[in-house]
Amino acid sequence: MEFRIEKDTMGEVKVPADKLWGAQTERSRNNFKIGPSASMPLEIVYGFAYLKKAAAYTNCELGVLPVEKRDLIAQVCDEILEGKHDDQFPLVIWQTGSGTQSNMNVNEVIANRAHQLAGKVIGEGEKTIQPNDDVNKSQSSNDTFPTGMHIAAYKKIVEVTIPGVTRLRDTLKRKSEEFKDVVKIGRTHLMDATPLTLGQEFSGYVSQLDHGLKALNNTLDHLSELALGGTAVGTGLNTPEGYAEKVAEFIATFTELPFKTAENKFEALASHDGIVETHGALKQLAVSLNKIANDIRLMASGPRSGIGEIIIPANEPGSSIMPGKVNPTQAEAITMVCAQVMGNDVAVTVGGTQGHYELNVFKPVMAANLLQSAQLLGDACVSFEEHCASGIEPNHTRIKELLNNSLMLVTALNTKIGYYKAAEIANTAHKNGTTLKEEAINLGYVSPEEYDEWVRPEDMTGSLK
Amino acid sequence: MEFRIEKDTMGEVKVPADKLWGAQTERSRNNFKIGPSASMPLEIVYGFAYLKKAAAYTNCELGVLPVEKRDLIAQVCDEILEGKHDDQFPLVIWQTGSGTQSNMNVNEVIANRAHQLAGKVIGEGEKTIQPNDDVNKSQSSNDTFPTGMHIAAYKKIVEVTIPGVTRLRDTLKRKSEEFKDVVKIGRTHLMDATPLTLGQEFSGYVSQLDHGLKALNNTLDHLSELALGGTAVGTGLNTPEGYAEKVAEFIATFTELPFKTAENKFEALASHDGIVETHGALKQLAVSLNKIANDIRLMASGPRSGIGEIIIPANEPGSSIMPGKVNPTQAEAITMVCAQVMGNDVAVTVGGTQGHYELNVFKPVMAANLLQSAQLLGDACVSFEEHCASGIEPNHTRIKELLNNSLMLVTALNTKIGYYKAAEIANTAHKNGTTLKEEAINLGYVSPEEYDEWVRPEDMTGSLK
Amino acid sequence: MEFRIEKDTMGEVKVPADKLWGAQTERSRNNFKIGPSASMPLEIVYGFAYLKKAAAYTNCELGVLPVEKRDLIAQVCDEILEGKHDDQFPLVIWQTGSGTQSNMNVNEVIANRAHQLAGKVIGEGEKTIQPNDDVNKSQSSNDTFPTGMHIAAYKKIVEVTIPGVTRLRDTLKRKSEEFKDVVKIGRTHLMDATPLTLGQEFSGYVSQLDHGLKALNNTLDHLSELALGGTAVGTGLNTPEGYAEKVAEFIATFTELPFKTAENKFEALASHDGIVETHGALKQLAVSLNKIANDIRLMASGPRSGIGEIIIPANEPGSSIMPGKVNPTQAEAITMVCAQVMGNDVAVTVGGTQGHYELNVFKPVMAANLLQSAQLLGDACVSFEEHCASGIEPNHTRIKELLNNSLMLVTALNTKIGYYKAAEIANTAHKNGTTLKEEAINLGYVSPEEYDEWVRPEDMTGSLK
Amino acid sequence: MEFRIEKDTMGEVKVPADKLWGAQTERSRNNFKIGPSASMPLEIVYGFAYLKKAAAYTNCELGVLPVEKRDLIAQVCDEILEGKHDDQFPLVIWQTGSGTQSNMNVNEVIANRAHQLAGKVIGEGEKTIQPNDDVNKSQSSNDTFPTGMHIAAYKKIVEVTIPGVTRLRDTLKRKSEEFKDVVKIGRTHLMDATPLTLGQEFSGYVSQLDHGLKALNNTLDHLSELALGGTAVGTGLNTPEGYAEKVAEFIATFTELPFKTAENKFEALASHDGIVETHGALKQLAVSLNKIANDIRLMASGPRSGIGEIIIPANEPGSSIMPGKVNPTQAEAITMVCAQVMGNDVAVTVGGTQGHYELNVFKPVMAANLLQSAQLLGDACVSFEEHCASGIEPNHTRIKELLNNSLMLVTALNTKIGYYKAAEIANTAHKNGTTLKEEAINLGYVSPEEYDEWVRPEDMTGSLK
Repeated sequence: MEFRIEKDTMGEVKVPADKLWGAQTERSRNNFKIGPSASMPLEIVYGFAYLKKAAAYTNCELGVLPVEKRDLIAQVCDEILEGKHDDQFPLVIWQTGSGTQSNMNVNEVIANRAHQLAGKVIGEGEKTIQPNDDVNKSQSSNDTFPTGMHIAAYKKIVEVTIPGVTRLRDTLKRKSEEFKDVVKIGRTHLMDATPLTLGQEFSGYVSQLDHGLKALNNTLDHLSELALGGTAVGTGLNTPEGYAEKVAEFIATFTELPFKTAENKFEALASHDGIVETHGALKQLAVSLNKIANDIRLMASGPRSGIGEIIIPANEPGSSIMPGKVNPTQAEAITMVCAQVMGNDVAVTVGGTQGHYELNVFKPVMAANLLQSAQLLGDACVSFEEHCASGIEPNHTRIKELLNNSLMLVTALNTKIGYYKAAEIANTAHKNGTTLKEEAINLGYVSPEEYDEWVRPEDMTGSLK
Repeated sequence: MEFRIEKDTMGEVKVPADKLWGAQTERSRNNFKIGPSASMPLEIVYGFAYLKKAAAYTNCELGVLPVEKRDLIAQVCDEILEGKHDDQFPLVIWQTGSGTQSNMNVNEVIANRAHQLAGKVIGEGEKTIQPNDDVNKSQSSNDTFPTGMHIAAYKKIVEVTIPGVTRLRDTLKRKSEEFKDVVKIGRTHLMDATPLTLGQEFSGYVSQLDHGLKALNNTLDHLSELALGGTAVGTGLNTPEGYAEKVAEFIATFTELPFKTAENKFEALASHDGIVETHGALKQLAVSLNKIANDIRLMASGPRSGIGEIIIPANEPGSSIMPGKVNPTQAEAITMVCAQVMGNDVAVTVGGTQGHYELNVFKPVMAANLLQSAQLLGDACVSFEEHCASGIEPNHTRIKELLNNSLMLVTALNTKIGYYKAAEIANTAHKNGTTLKEEAINLGYVSPEEYDEWVRPEDMTGSLK
Repeated sequence: MEFRIEKDTMGEVKVPADKLWGAQTERSRNNFKIGPSASMPLEIVYGFAYLKKAAAYTNCELGVLPVEKRDLIAQVCDEILEGKHDDQFPLVIWQTGSGTQSNMNVNEVIANRAHQLAGKVIGEGEKTIQPNDDVNKSQSSNDTFPTGMHIAAYKKIVEVTIPGVTRLRDTLKRKSEEFKDVVKIGRTHLMDATPLTLGQEFSGYVSQLDHGLKALNNTLDHLSELALGGTAVGTGLNTPEGYAEKVAEFIATFTELPFKTAENKFEALASHDGIVETHGALKQLAVSLNKIANDIRLMASGPRSGIGEIIIPANEPGSSIMPGKVNPTQAEAITMVCAQVMGNDVAVTVGGTQGHYELNVFKPVMAANLLQSAQLLGDACVSFEEHCASGIEPNHTRIKELLNNSLMLVTALNTKIGYYKAAEIANTAHKNGTTLKEEAINLGYVSPEEYDEWVRPEDMTGSLK
Repeated sequence: MEFRIEKDTMGEVKVPADKLWGAQTERSRNNFKIGPSASMPLEIVYGFAYLKKAAAYTNCELGVLPVEKRDLIAQVCDEILEGKHDDQFPLVIWQTGSGTQSNMNVNEVIANRAHQLAGKVIGEGEKTIQPNDDVNKSQSSNDTFPTGMHIAAYKKIVEVTIPGVTRLRDTLKRKSEEFKDVVKIGRTHLMDATPLTLGQEFSGYVSQLDHGLKALNNTLDHLSELALGGTAVGTGLNTPEGYAEKVAEFIATFTELPFKTAENKFEALASHDGIVETHGALKQLAVSLNKIANDIRLMASGPRSGIGEIIIPANEPGSSIMPGKVNPTQAEAITMVCAQVMGNDVAVTVGGTQGHYELNVFKPVMAANLLQSAQLLGDACVSFEEHCASGIEPNHTRIKELLNNSLMLVTALNTKIGYYKAAEIANTAHKNGTTLKEEAINLGYVSPEEYDEWVRPEDMTGSLK
């Protein structure tokens, strides 16, 4: 491999000649061989591209950066956002906890690429743009990294998670309406209970996701706060007057998202409760989705020896050994995602607790976990919607069979003959393997006509339909 | 011990003669000897007292319960809320997951006590009030228990957690203002960094708690939704028209809190995402408090071989072997609470994922963990405020000494001479054990006058003060 | 209330006159009003009683404590272990993280009670025994508290957890043998699969618990290591020669458990990985028990609209509204315990990570969580065994019905006609709602005789029976 | 893109013409677009390669597979293990929870590649080797996937985790010996305490890792149990006599690791407590490493306003804004890894609880988390060792300065003048800002000669050195 020499304040470093990065990126690459390379999420790099461009515009507008430099920086940022330099960011999550070298990676790539754009050869002549003094002007890793991660997280939530969850929610809503007249047995404690409609069951899922989406939306305000302008410790040292507000405005403009400058920069550097808060809402969604997916696979279980009340799409042969088997694979995928999100929540929580003084140095692990959870939840909802939920159909025959067998229809008699006599009817029928009606009449508590009038499953699904 | 005979639908049970509870409570007591007795939180019993009274009023108003029964039920509920029957609720958290026997415990105590209030002897004559048909009228365990736990949780949050956290927040805010001119060294990565004021540091804590309180408040709407009216499976079977809305109104009136009927009762029985949501916000507060308490004990460390920038109250002898030792014990108590809350969050999460069909049967464990977290956080904040935060004082001598030594003041020169030369000054001073000023001048980068003008810690704490 | 004056190195404190504790206990009681009082587990107090007695014997044997003092201390320790002073330990978990005041609570109670035993009046005359110089001789909170918690934890594990889990394991083993000829349908992905025996299913549960018990036993060696002798920071300052080994021997003798002195006292004070390790094994057991209890409630679901393959004991009326309902309440209690243990594991983990320098100050929270988990798991296993597992019976009729319906019996044909043709048979039968045999013959792949010979459920449960 | 047609029991599928995979892989690729593609760890694919080869050998030896097929299968497996087909496994973790399609992916690649090796063209003529009937002979996804994940996990633990942790442990041991005479101040509660040597401090770290490695080794026996031979539900249906033992022997031979057949195949399919158990030990190591790394960064804090007792290597410029800053970046990377491992532990735990009946369908998420944790811990230990631990040096000047200032040296006087007088000395010196010696003499408790003889830090580091 060919190399060129790059320098930083600690001296010279050999860097692969065909790469745009510089000395500090190369040091980090060598110092942190932990897990697969390039694990730092690209979304964060893109977040940096937005903020570096916004900083350049702000610095220019506030008179501390010439317009030519601004334009060169902005041009490279645009290239990064177009995905043209994805292979120039080789660093891992498991580096310095402030993400300093990832900030420098971006600074170095911008500086070197700007040198090329200025018609020069990397490594020859003075750098057209300095990574620290120009690209990083009015910035520190300590305020850029959290800004980059808020941008990345916010975008992921609104572009992937919310649309994905909403898509599933809408399909469940549609199903809830489709199934509004399908009366079926209810189950509590996994045991037979009084009836409800399949539509009512699905309406509960919709309500869960509605609440979850609301909870997620509630966290976005905190996530929209940007640390940029705090620089090294939150005081804004080395920034021009008005910088923090202005740079947040530029970021809002470039991303078309409602970002704003954090009211308190000391918090914004030293703690990442905003990440904790948003991930908490993702975890809540995971809790909801786990319940929903579990219900669906239980109701679809069978085909002959399970519950079998609904039919889900058969997407692939289910078994390498059992011919003809169909499995609730989408439910499995999404519940595995839920388990991951619950785990990630603990990683984010632990990271969030460990700030010291002016800086939390668990930024990369917190950001990476949030981005993973947000992506997986959104994707899994889409996959579950497309390959499972949208195709769910009731098995009407089975549903009726189970409904009519149920001993819990006796509950309708509570208000007529009291709980104790009703219990006696149910217990006797259970013991004798007979029907409720037979025993209700045998015991002399109701007449056949009363029974037929009082015990009607379709009347038991209530005013809350 | 003397006993009397109580009956339920399964037969006769011997119950201690001096107790108000009945057959089902006694069965549960014998069937679930798991952990210490009476672990079911009393707050939930009180929640039940509110809702049983409200149900009696609603049933009466809707014409299904006579006014005399209503008044007897209400009278016992009031006695329970006055704490007169605390010893009548012996059941444990680790019972049926719907809390059915705790519901019956309340029903039985109310029925038996009402019998007494009606001038009769328990166990003699027909019960004046029936536990199932009267006290539990228009109710199921499945909707009462979640209602009881929402009442208990909401009250705990607004009566203990929020006031406790707010008290600490206010004291930290006051300290932040008191300390607004105390310039000190900043620290990032635990390493010396550019200066800020002690007030700025504390303002970050205030901002964390402000965000945490906001996040907690965001969850209260979900928590204010009551399941009552859903009865067995969410359909409202066996409830009179208008019951759900009316009973929620009565609960709101009796508790003076903004409770409302849940829009979707199927969700309200089958999942407890509202508990998950609120606990998520408690966990976020734990994350914040952990950071704050850690900072304070680090800054107070010493007295001679630590950081020693602040002085915290000495509340007790710190060591049984080391004479004269003072420890940051309040910080230790609150961070232990934080660890517990983080653990409880997982218990709540796991419980929340496991609903099946129409019912989540992890209600007691979810409720108990939420109540514990809410109580501990509130109490710990008060304790920390009273015995630590309110007495924090800066150690001005030490603060100045550390500030003036710092090599990171060199950052002020970045905008004058560039990052690279500034780094050279800092590195040389570090290597030689000299001062920045000496080396800045030796290296010829600044004049003594420039140095004194440019490197002024008090000017480095910025516009964000 | 009447008070007496007690003193410590910080001055005088008013203590309730009828209590044996002294100044430091009273300070802690007032300084830490967090959660319910006396939450510090009594098991830890008993652990202290063992170690204080052992320390007195060791100090005496090594010539630094007179025999009369030894005997007075030992006498009070014995009284504590008999439960005579349970109300003298009012402190909470949420105190100093070293448990210093709980150590002093024990020291003070022993000193004051010894004064009484010496025939004197508390508060009058010089203390017969000094809390620090005598009772705490050759000790620090920093080595006594971890010793007390290891004693408490080890005892709980071997006296409650292991016997409880073993009792359940043995019953499941017995059931596994009873059910060895009950051929039933298997289920994978909750879907019908090839058959096995009910005994085989239960043998899996037994194997899980066997592995879990082995894993728990593997942790006991670490837990048997005692910190005592390390004193303040692990160096053993102020202990006589040979003290650490000798005091561990006395503790082993008094408790009749194989305790030994920790090889490295610095670890034993500064980290509690032994607690983390043991709790990890408890969590593993929780994972296993969750699976077992889930299976049992799924198999018992019904009675008419679920799986219904087994019948579990009906211990109580299951519903306050649905007459005649029976629920798998023991499964619910134990799975709630499992959720708690999973949460506690995170609390223990977080506490375990946070040691600094020579001391971990999350001792009380770690100990309390371990003790709770160990108690709950042991109790829940006993409860589940007694009230559920021991009464499980197969529902033979239902089992046969489900078995004979199953399409997955077709798997037996794989080795005769290949996976693809077998799949065709199953798919056709599924589509047509017919039997495998019909379609196997219709499709011309097997003769009726071949089918009957090849497809025999009882032959499909294998050599691994 | 060009395609060819592949078939499975559900029909035809278009597959990219240049790929070796078949219909089921392609279905899974399209049905599960969740997160980045090919996230299923390659280590699991390699585990499959070992077991497919072993199955072919066993099937051949037991007379159910011809030797030519065995050799073709084995040849492809060897190619896979050489990394020649890494791009043929495009599936994700978030698929069916049994990993069925990853099993089929391997079966299909082997079958198609074997066809090539037999000199034929994929898609032309009958397959030389059938994916289900030959490659998957005597197997199911349900026993192959857990076998593959145990192989992958065991190898990762013994090849990456244990060597990595051991390397760090050995360096810390070496440092512990190097530093055995460096007397320094101890700290408990982050506050000054009695002295110890730096070597003693490091010996605690060594002891933590020794215990952690022992705990990890304790779990390997469970992990060495292989499910293979259980096939669909654990009964071993469609396997020849003696298959399970024999195939485990072949795997042991091929991997050179002590694998054995699981005693109970029902457990081995339906639960993955072995994964839970091993991950529990990884989590314990994370707890230990977190403490160690925290200590080191605290001791290295400064350079001028922190503790500064040790010097760690400066590997990179620490700040993009603060010139000359050096940070404890390796400590940050490893503690981020610890946070991730703690999170992964919850994901593994949650997955482990959720088996139903004969199968746990959280296999891929459990395996992926274990492999990530094992890799990250091993890598992070090597990185921390190489770039931090091995270069740690004491700052002797600073250590002495802090030691001699300490008030806690007074503890040495306890055994001479009693705890109370010693406390008085320390408190007075603290109040007056004087030395212990001055006040000890002023108060008349010791003579100057006694003080010098009794208070010698180097004598206070004890017999436990």
